[in-house]
Amino acid sequence: MAVVTLLTDFGSRDHFAAAMKGVMLGIDPGLTLVDVTHDIPRGDVRAGAFTLAQCCFLFPPGTVHLAVVDPGVGGGRKALAVAAGGHRFVAPDNGILTPVFESCADFEAHEIAPGRAGRYFRQPVSATFHGRDVFAPVAAWLCRGVPLEQLGPPLRDPVQLPSPQALPARDGRGAFIQGAVLAVDRFGNLVTNLRPSDVATPCEIEVGGRVIRALRQTYAEGAPGEVFAVQGSAGYVEIVMRDGSAAEALQLTAGAPVRCNLS
Amino acid sequence: MAVVTLLTDFGSRDHFAAAMKGVMLGIDPGLTLVDVTHDIPRGDVRAGAFTLAQCCFLFPPGTVHLAVVDPGVGGGRKALAVAAGGHRFVAPDNGILTPVFESCADFEAHEIAPGRAGRYFRQPVSATFHGRDVFAPVAAWLCRGVPLEQLGPPLRDPVQLPSPQALPARDGRGAFIQGAVLAVDRFGNLVTNLRPSDVATPCEIEVGGRVIRALRQTYAEGAPGEVFAVQGSAGYVEIVMRDGSAAEALQLTAGAPVRCNLS
Amino acid sequence: MAVVTLLTDFGSRDHFAAAMKGVMLGIDPGLTLVDVTHDIPRGDVRAGAFTLAQCCFLFPPGTVHLAVVDPGVGGGRKALAVAAGGHRFVAPDNGILTPVFESCADFEAHEIAPGRAGRYFRQPVSATFHGRDVFAPVAAWLCRGVPLEQLGPPLRDPVQLPSPQALPARDGRGAFIQGAVLAVDRFGNLVTNLRPSDVATPCEIEVGGRVIRALRQTYAEGAPGEVFAVQGSAGYVEIVMRDGSAAEALQLTAGAPVRCNLS
Repeated sequence: MAVVTLLTDFGSRDHFAAAMKGVMLGIDPGLTLVDVTHDIPRGDVRAGAFTLAQCCFLFPPGTVHLAVVDPGVGGGRKALAVAAGGHRFVAPDNGILTPVFESCADFEAHEIAPGRAGRYFRQPVSATFHGRDVFAPVAAWLCRGVPLEQLGPPLRDPVQLPSPQALPARDGRGAFIQGAVLAVDRFGNLVTNLRPSDVATPCEIEVGGRVIRALRQTYAEGAPGEVFAVQGSAGYVEIVMRDGSAAEALQLTAGAPVRCNLS
Repeated sequence: MAVVTLLTDFGSRDHFAAAMKGVMLGIDPGLTLVDVTHDIPRGDVRAGAFTLAQCCFLFPPGTVHLAVVDPGVGGGRKALAVAAGGHRFVAPDNGILTPVFESCADFEAHEIAPGRAGRYFRQPVSATFHGRDVFAPVAAWLCRGVPLEQLGPPLRDPVQLPSPQALPARDGRGAFIQGAVLAVDRFGNLVTNLRPSDVATPCEIEVGGRVIRALRQTYAEGAPGEVFAVQGSAGYVEIVMRDGSAAEALQLTAGAPVRCNLS
Repeated sequence: MAVVTLLTDFGSRDHFAAAMKGVMLGIDPGLTLVDVTHDIPRGDVRAGAFTLAQCCFLFPPGTVHLAVVDPGVGGGRKALAVAAGGHRFVAPDNGILTPVFESCADFEAHEIAPGRAGRYFRQPVSATFHGRDVFAPVAAWLCRGVPLEQLGPPLRDPVQLPSPQALPARDGRGAFIQGAVLAVDRFGNLVTNLRPSDVATPCEIEVGGRVIRALRQTYAEGAPGEVFAVQGSAGYVEIVMRDGSAAEALQLTAGAPVRCNLS
């Protein structure tokens, strides 16, 4: 009953994701394989990290999460196998597991070292497709009980991306929380790093040149065409537009600053 | 060996569908999860209803169908659990199950009432993502044997969308069947609500300003660039274009009128 | 633990792929279903053949591969069930299995003949959706142990597409290998039929009006904006662009000629 999730930037048009699945089922045909997504923008490690973090811990304990957004494939970056929060993760060491490390301080990371772990790899190992030749087989072998220690030495300091924090600040206009857009979903909703508890009622959120004063519970409460804020399902304040894309209306992407005035 | 199908408008780029799957596998890791599609146009309940109806009863009896196109999430709409035709359905009460109710007059619908069913929900329940917090866990618990009655009271009159019927009519030009386009598939084929038995040979179908006189068996019988009619796999007459999109050629979408002259 | 893979040009927006899955699970609810892709360009048998060949033999022996890119559905083309390399294949007889036949000279092909195999079909058989009514049920029954011989007579000469070979040649400019682009992946990488062993160092590959002199190991070794060659994961030389699409930069598609000068 072992579950493996897959998150990549490989798209769904080519054979790439299926190749990984074939390799895994070849090692353990009883695996349950679940796609998180294969549509992470090419090479966007930060978007992959966000998307993985939004769902990984909803899966049953013991699930192995395979996350391959890997612009440095074949270069010097390391490969990782991690135990955290009762789950396991297999990924390049490029920061894609940053939110996992942040939420599970007692994580245990091991390098996947060719010397020790090579017998689990698909041979020959392509220089451009470690998803198929390194990460997928390691994930399947973890499901079959291979311990992390057999893959390589512990890694104390895996790569972590700087995490934008929403922080209190003050300037000539008064006190505020300085936040940022963490992600944009396919509806064009802007997921910020503000918590609903950061936001007073009525609120005053400045984003993309607009001032938003409404923090609502649901999309349906907005007026057509209105850009407003909701308490999103990820636990963050989202800037949304009913029946439209807030990202398009405000011309914003991940990383854009958000200011929430306190008064 | 329980099967759950998923149909949503969440797209496949974000974590939304995977979050639902994680929640379900957390309740029953032995579930077989099958995506119908996550690419229903945003909020298009009618398109969701059509797509679900085209495949749901092909699955084995006992399958639970999870259909979440839910523009009213967090508002006053009810949530439904339904038994019909040996299958079960979990969905918002917004008409997405209309074809199921039409084809199974002895359906049994129960409200998913927070008071009774709340213990099956993921807590806390987000106001914007009932797919993850309400519908997915209820679907998984149904698979584990929870009876409909435990979720809430029976619902006599679930929301049903008006169903366009192909009806005989007569005007100054003579007798005809007045029909409509039910759906447009990704090839641009226009699925109408005309039955092949409605259509004489040679036929005379007026649609989008054209008169179509050929009802063929297969796409391959058409000439390149020709717009013609075929007996579609859904049991309806489809207006198609060989190697092209009839919807684009005729500039039509779901709801467009179709007139089939009888002579 | 039987595995069935699905490759089609049906897209993921409609019910088509789910209908096939429902039919198969109705015959054997224990099947493991894996999507290769449903995004083969409409009717592009050659692209389907390439994509299938890149992953099919990575799956465990005994896997049934269902490949339905079928522009001739309902016409005179035959339907095939094939055993090759320990795997089985169900597909229209239109060349989509060409690489399978090329790599497994001892393949065994049987026609799926309505007279003998009809009892395994979904009835009535639609003229436009053999994926649901013929191919999917036959695949599921193969998993349940129905032997190929029960489906129809052996077929000696299934349709095979001409395979572009990379061949040595000579003209006034000297000796060279004449190759071609086999496929373009979603990143815009051009997969050629040149083998890394065909290419000298430094190389001189002429493609799309450019001369490429760098055959690198990985994408990361290229300079930003550079078009160069890598040893691709399919075992062929690929023409790629770091952080961009070589197909767009060179305005090339599958079939384009590639010349590798030998000196």
